[in-house]
Amino acid sequence: MNLLLLDPADFQGDDRVVVRGRRAAHVASVVRPAVGAELVIGVVDGPRGVGVVLACGPDELVLEPRLDREPEPVPPIDLLLALPRPKVVRRLLTDIASLGVDTLHLTNAWRVERAYFASPALAPESIDAALRRGLEQARATRRPRVVVHHRLMAFLDDTLPDLAPGARLLAHPNHRHRLTVADVAGERVLIAIGPEGGWIEREVTTFVERGFTSFTLGPRLLRTEAAVPAIYGWVTALRGGL
Amino acid sequence: MNLLLLDPADFQGDDRVVVRGRRAAHVASVVRPAVGAELVIGVVDGPRGVGVVLACGPDELVLEPRLDREPEPVPPIDLLLALPRPKVVRRLLTDIASLGVDTLHLTNAWRVERAYFASPALAPESIDAALRRGLEQARATRRPRVVVHHRLMAFLDDTLPDLAPGARLLAHPNHRHRLTVADVAGERVLIAIGPEGGWIEREVTTFVERGFTSFTLGPRLLRTEAAVPAIYGWVTALRGGL
Repeated sequence: MNLLLLDPADFQGDDRVVVRGRRAAHVASVVRPAVGAELVIGVVDGPRGVGVVLACGPDELVLEPRLDREPEPVPPIDLLLALPRPKVVRRLLTDIASLGVDTLHLTNAWRVERAYFASPALAPESIDAALRRGLEQARATRRPRVVVHHRLMAFLDDTLPDLAPGARLLAHPNHRHRLTVADVAGERVLIAIGPEGGWIEREVTTFVERGFTSFTLGPRLLRTEAAVPAIYGWVTALRGGL
Repeated sequence: MNLLLLDPADFQGDDRVVVRGRRAAHVASVVRPAVGAELVIGVVDGPRGVGVVLACGPDELVLEPRLDREPEPVPPIDLLLALPRPKVVRRLLTDIASLGVDTLHLTNAWRVERAYFASPALAPESIDAALRRGLEQARATRRPRVVVHHRLMAFLDDTLPDLAPGARLLAHPNHRHRLTVADVAGERVLIAIGPEGGWIEREVTTFVERGFTSFTLGPRLLRTEAAVPAIYGWVTALRGGL
């Protein structure tokens, strides 16, 4: 936890924050700050700053907040991700919140198992908890928007036309095209990453018809947990940084 | 498992491979190939190709190997990684084998806990098993060399001077410098990635004295499991691909 993420409900007026539960226990046992010490804090979807410790125990942490920094900017990056296995989805939500995206679209695809959509990992409170861990790690406060699409075609037909224009990229290990600076140019970028077995050819054709550039990072197949940050880093480097 | 990794001991002459144990059980239960089907295979640190299934049961898989492809090239990338927690080290070894490096140096640092060096995750057979999982995922056969350094200064004084010349990079979230194409130019690149709490300033100074360029991907702090592929992708993109 590199930033203590606060909820509006933690505030008792503007000058006093009282934190209880998991976060208080973590700060008391791991950070162990002295009274008067400053902790990096932020309000979920809001400003960042420091909190001066007024009292710190395992059950209750009391801070005086100084929130003088804007939330980090919204990254001009959206991800479309074929829904991974439930065990993977939690870690990925956390890492994607750390990396920073505007909107994460989780979608069905031919090689996604239907049962994954019934997983408790997709319950709103479970998604929210995973995102918050990622923000605490990254010292950020803005939660990515997460949208679950039960049909890929529904995303392509109903959601895609309304997205702001920008580069559209499709990661596909079987293709040969290496990304160029021209491929990723534009105000925004939408990156589609398939399931572990890859997109099927019919899906690839449909994406390409909708203006996606299919690309590969190379012949090596990566686990989704490694592929997402590797592709994010690759695309961001070609775009000249964050 | 996208490639079935074979050991020389699996061969009964040049024309017959007999696989038992975990790998046979996995192929029988997950891949379920018909007799006559072709599996993607490779010999550890050796050639790749396909194996024609002669027999497939839960205890024994018999193949006729056709190994007509060279092993993948050795990537001109070395990693120096501050030793992470044991739970993390296994997954990282797997992902690093998938991404592909020449040599992985695992090192001590000020913010690494000494106890990590006694972990069973660093036993040679445990390292080897993690690397093999990564190769099976990536369809590669060449194991990265893994060297454990109990003292960072021993690496810097004794190992570093003998490495082939190339770009030397130090990931350090507190610094402001963004990587440029010039920073990563050269035949080879060595990337140093610190512990979760970062390198201490004295370590950074020592690295910079030895010719490392300190850089940041941005203000967001990533878990090591996400930082390694993100940095790998970023650096590789700037180097013009794999």
